[in-house]
Amino acid sequence: VTALAQRLIERKRDGGRIEPGEWRALTNAYAAGHVPDYQMAAFLMAAYIRGLDRAETSSLTDAMLSTGAHLSLEHLGIGRVDKHSTGGVGDKVSLVLAPLVASLGVAVPMMSGRGLGHTGGTLDKLESIPGFRTTLSLADATRQIERIGCAMLGQSAEIAPADRKMYALRDATSTVESIPLIAASIMSKKLAEGLSGLVLDVKRGSGAFLPELDRGLELARTMIDLGVDRGCAVVALITAMDRPLGRACGNALEVEEAIHTLRGEGPPDVLGVVYALGAEMLVLGGAAPSLDAARRAMEVAVSSGKAARKFEEIIDAQGGNAAVVDDPSVLPQAGACELFLAPRAGVVACVEPRAVGRGVTALGGGRTRIEDSVDPSVGFVITAKPGDVVQNGEPLATVFARDRAGIDAGLTTLRRAIAIADEAEPPLPLISHRVTSAGVTPFEHA
Amino acid sequence: VTALAQRLIERKRDGGRIEPGEWRALTNAYAAGHVPDYQMAAFLMAAYIRGLDRAETSSLTDAMLSTGAHLSLEHLGIGRVDKHSTGGVGDKVSLVLAPLVASLGVAVPMMSGRGLGHTGGTLDKLESIPGFRTTLSLADATRQIERIGCAMLGQSAEIAPADRKMYALRDATSTVESIPLIAASIMSKKLAEGLSGLVLDVKRGSGAFLPELDRGLELARTMIDLGVDRGCAVVALITAMDRPLGRACGNALEVEEAIHTLRGEGPPDVLGVVYALGAEMLVLGGAAPSLDAARRAMEVAVSSGKAARKFEEIIDAQGGNAAVVDDPSVLPQAGACELFLAPRAGVVACVEPRAVGRGVTALGGGRTRIEDSVDPSVGFVITAKPGDVVQNGEPLATVFARDRAGIDAGLTTLRRAIAIADEAEPPLPLISHRVTSAGVTPFEHA
Repeated sequence: VTALAQRLIERKRDGGRIEPGEWRALTNAYAAGHVPDYQMAAFLMAAYIRGLDRAETSSLTDAMLSTGAHLSLEHLGIGRVDKHSTGGVGDKVSLVLAPLVASLGVAVPMMSGRGLGHTGGTLDKLESIPGFRTTLSLADATRQIERIGCAMLGQSAEIAPADRKMYALRDATSTVESIPLIAASIMSKKLAEGLSGLVLDVKRGSGAFLPELDRGLELARTMIDLGVDRGCAVVALITAMDRPLGRACGNALEVEEAIHTLRGEGPPDVLGVVYALGAEMLVLGGAAPSLDAARRAMEVAVSSGKAARKFEEIIDAQGGNAAVVDDPSVLPQAGACELFLAPRAGVVACVEPRAVGRGVTALGGGRTRIEDSVDPSVGFVITAKPGDVVQNGEPLATVFARDRAGIDAGLTTLRRAIAIADEAEPPLPLISHRVTSAGVTPFEHA
Repeated sequence: VTALAQRLIERKRDGGRIEPGEWRALTNAYAAGHVPDYQMAAFLMAAYIRGLDRAETSSLTDAMLSTGAHLSLEHLGIGRVDKHSTGGVGDKVSLVLAPLVASLGVAVPMMSGRGLGHTGGTLDKLESIPGFRTTLSLADATRQIERIGCAMLGQSAEIAPADRKMYALRDATSTVESIPLIAASIMSKKLAEGLSGLVLDVKRGSGAFLPELDRGLELARTMIDLGVDRGCAVVALITAMDRPLGRACGNALEVEEAIHTLRGEGPPDVLGVVYALGAEMLVLGGAAPSLDAARRAMEVAVSSGKAARKFEEIIDAQGGNAAVVDDPSVLPQAGACELFLAPRAGVVACVEPRAVGRGVTALGGGRTRIEDSVDPSVGFVITAKPGDVVQNGEPLATVFARDRAGIDAGLTTLRRAIAIADEAEPPLPLISHRVTSAGVTPFEHA
């Protein structure tokens, strides 16, 4: 096995191709502990620098998928669709989309991660709802989806264990930002959900994992190819992450904003992204004949309260206090809050998402290490958006913190993150491109 | 420390430069166990693929050198010169050179390694002399060099421990054949000998570590640069390893051939390489005014028995049976031997050194793993050389083995290694180039 690993390291080092059976053998041997971390680290660095072609990326995805368990949901007889985002600051879209799309007859088996670095995680947000459990077994998740069409759970150790081990190693060896490795990692987990369709939210801009548009498009195309090869239709939208999405940044604050959005009262940018991604999910899931029809159906589900009722069902099924949907004050409340006022008149030139995301972590609301615990109550609500004209002393944001020291730290964060100038470049369009297996087109509002 | 490692991995991955202080920090942290193997493996693969420039190679050499102890021999007041070979089959040159050069007034602090893979190691050869100890402390080696001008010892754990650890990792992660990494590894050990001069024997041809001439020249130039920057003059000769050097291949058999050579009775190719390298050592060590004068001095030391007497002194000082110099039959003798006869008439087209080297290992005379023990008595004496015209049934070689099964295995090795044809390409010139800090010139026989 060590000799096999050595041969494959050497070949990838010299720019050669790894065959499907070799990917399987290497992945299984690594998952089983027969190939040591140091050999896999050398291999991953060679793969990072030399790249993987489409067939190799596909073989790696299959190999990682086959090391673990997966959901089987074909017997439901309805579309099974999830959404994946490359991660951003203030991105509470999953919390809205899952109940909204499930309320319209598409099964949503949603497995999510925890926050790390400057971006938050859906699991942390959900767990700010008192009692909410995200650790469901695959059997429990299946039963819940059979009953109410949706489950929102953490990725268990049963799913793609080779990917879990390999991702931790990549994180420690600066081999994360490789498009084929990212695509294979995400798709091996998403395909384990037994999906018939997947919608990708690929962020671009300074707060995105891959800030450059061309890299985001390449990731989208790679993941679309992987899905198509396995009978899972994939559509990607390119969305803006040069500023936080919506106003709330912080776990409980984002849950509250998600609930407002489910009632149609959310910030326009959150609603815009939710409707655009949701329409794709409903069409892929066979629950709407067109994007326009899907959008109209969602508007009705929101205005009628049907989407909000579905969120209550999900929260209730997972042990949480469903009263939160009518009364968000049951969420944990911060000990102190204070307004942040514009230090001068002008135009908001920038709300830097990485600075805001790191600011949430500094307040105790995020992780720098995976084992850190998270304070759900802290964060920011930033009402100012790039391009807004503001007066000196006008409130731009609110800091929510544990105590006075936290308030001061939060205000410092906002002073650095929010730039006011005489003039400002226009921000990125909220949604700029739509990518399918047929190609890339500019996004057009439905 | 882990964050530092991660930053340096990332920079080298993207083709950037590592600064001197960073090389030091990384090397020290790795030697101390603060940087895990998997991070170093990723770094080494990035370094392998992206390369190191001259300043980086130099910084890495210094960093590894400074993790360990070194010999201090300046107080001797004479030149201190060693030879390093990139490794070959039948290469017993060190056994001849050390006593020969030491007998002419240059100190030779010779640290060597063990055989691994298809090439033999000087330590294994010396240890076939009954009683010979190669594990000397640096203090013992210093006292012996003060007294008799030479010590032949193993590289102790005190010398460049970071290199030792890094080399084992490179061996397991297919990152060995990188010229800057090789050069830094060799020079960090050689410079620890406290040398004023170093002569390199860079092999080329099918049996060499780097078979291609241009890669050998690049390695030579890299090592010359490293030496020059530290006040250690370096000269390299490019020598042939498209066939074994001399006739004997196997530990005790090579000691016997080395003793014959010390008396002027060795094979012409061994004598040719010994005199060429020895002349460079004597000039670098200030013991001869020119290469011609050095060569004449060596011829006298050989014919007078002075060189052989120096070998006796060394053997005696290190606990060995010095009678071996007058009577090689005190060496371990193989249980069985048999001639190998030419299977047809023709011209010897090839004596494949890798096949011969692996054949020695198969007889028990070499290692496939570092912990294997070695049978000193087995091996081959191959009298046929490429270009020789031979008759059908003419003896070409002798197999020395433990038993009948070994004899059969050895004969099979020779049938594969020795090719007889109607015509043959000329072999590589024994010594083709001389490389100094001034450049490369064709080698001219003195």
